[in-house]
Amino acid sequence: MSHTSDISALAVAEEILNRDNFSRWLGIKLLEIGEGYSKIEMEIRDEMINGLGIVHGGVSFALADSAFALACNSRNNLSVAWDTSITFTRASKLWDVLTAEANEVHNGKSTGLYTVTITNQRNEQVALFKGTCFRMTKRAI
Amino acid sequence: MSHTSDISALAVAEEILNRDNFSRWLGIKLLEIGEGYSKIEMEIRDEMINGLGIVHGGVSFALADSAFALACNSRNNLSVAWDTSITFTRASKLWDVLTAEANEVHNGKSTGLYTVTITNQRNEQVALFKGTCFRMTKRAI
Amino acid sequence: MSHTSDISALAVAEEILNRDNFSRWLGIKLLEIGEGYSKIEMEIRDEMINGLGIVHGGVSFALADSAFALACNSRNNLSVAWDTSITFTRASKLWDVLTAEANEVHNGKSTGLYTVTITNQRNEQVALFKGTCFRMTKRAI
Amino acid sequence: MSHTSDISALAVAEEILNRDNFSRWLGIKLLEIGEGYSKIEMEIRDEMINGLGIVHGGVSFALADSAFALACNSRNNLSVAWDTSITFTRASKLWDVLTAEANEVHNGKSTGLYTVTITNQRNEQVALFKGTCFRMTKRAI
Repeated sequence: MSHTSDISALAVAEEILNRDNFSRWLGIKLLEIGEGYSKIEMEIRDEMINGLGIVHGGVSFALADSAFALACNSRNNLSVAWDTSITFTRASKLWDVLTAEANEVHNGKSTGLYTVTITNQRNEQVALFKGTCFRMTKRAI
Repeated sequence: MSHTSDISALAVAEEILNRDNFSRWLGIKLLEIGEGYSKIEMEIRDEMINGLGIVHGGVSFALADSAFALACNSRNNLSVAWDTSITFTRASKLWDVLTAEANEVHNGKSTGLYTVTITNQRNEQVALFKGTCFRMTKRAI
Repeated sequence: MSHTSDISALAVAEEILNRDNFSRWLGIKLLEIGEGYSKIEMEIRDEMINGLGIVHGGVSFALADSAFALACNSRNNLSVAWDTSITFTRASKLWDVLTAEANEVHNGKSTGLYTVTITNQRNEQVALFKGTCFRMTKRAI
Repeated sequence: MSHTSDISALAVAEEILNRDNFSRWLGIKLLEIGEGYSKIEMEIRDEMINGLGIVHGGVSFALADSAFALACNSRNNLSVAWDTSITFTRASKLWDVLTAEANEVHNGKSTGLYTVTITNQRNEQVALFKGTCFRMTKRAI
């Protein structure tokens, strides 16, 4: 089938994360992976705080975006982010541990739609992300 | 007036950027600032690259989000990001210099709406960001 | 409590729908209602088709927006749409019966965040909507 | 060129609007059209009012969506809405005359990005719309 490959979602995710300098800087850890699904976490460090004393929106977005990329590419079908949005429902603070869980809403031939929920260590939702991707016709790894 | 203060947009922007650890890590430089307006730039470093060899979406988002925050808070009226979206129209690469320009669409008492355009050193647009903020009733700095 | 009132979610929903000329034109029927929740349906008529022969995006959006408004205002706390987005995953056609189900993600004092899923009569998802509202400090009805 | 055809943007727009039952119901009039550009207007009627006594969000969205569709398809390259968002900055009322102006941000081979600004008869901005489309490889008309 055109949308799958012999390589497992886990193998793709590990390779993508391994090549991803920024996710490494963020300290992202892979918790779960599957077809169209991913769950990752990271801990907030001092370098990630903004001028208002809370976590920079770019850091929360980056976590969601990484979860989204892992879910999009889980079938080893190269997919790049196209349109994304994030709503922040609660501020995050230094040393918070944030978990992002990506779920597939639509898996089209050329496009995909995913939602990502970010929660903190008290299981409070801090952000909701929605992302669409465009699928290139080549392998992710 | 309730939406302004004696402190200039420049003084607010410099203080917010000065307190912002993540914007410092990104290497953000302030180019221009005004009421409801900001223009900043950054250079892409190796740490900002993702698993597909291009700039991590979180980095581009963070640049736009910082420009947005500076424009939102330019009247020293504490404003936090609420709902934001970004559409990526062109991939960015290592050593690209990205400029983000934020413009105010709506300056409400409790809310604000801004667009941010990101361009690269060849003046090609790489992303369009739209953000709404919620205004708290206190000073930003 | 400030966010509730003696009037039930059902009474609020019926009154809002009763006053809503455009929802009546659309032929919206209330299926379920609760605090922060609503489920409505409508049938696609000839007048709702666009120039490409499928349902006009504004009609699908309107259905989601009505479900969103009912969920937002379910505690009789007047709430108006602020930022909304919709991703279309499948085209809808003449005589399709579309169901919109709104769920509350965040119920803040001044703001709220909701998602709405639209499905057709074959239970295929046709759109995903995300909306934030701003809460005024008065009753909806 | 693959993205153009012998038919003018005006001929495409007139044909799309002519086939569009819902835009006709809305009373949309074409003011201007060009490659990647459109400007249309409509007057608010009693049937378009929601349960809060203001224009239903679906009506404003529909106007923006129609302007977006005309701009997307202006080169007669069939394009369908994929991800759209709208932020409402001011309520509209009965008999308001709303104008929607669509501008092209990105014209890609498979995708496009457009913004639409809605203003009222007092030239006040009432909404900002952002939309991405997916281009099929066939003619719009």
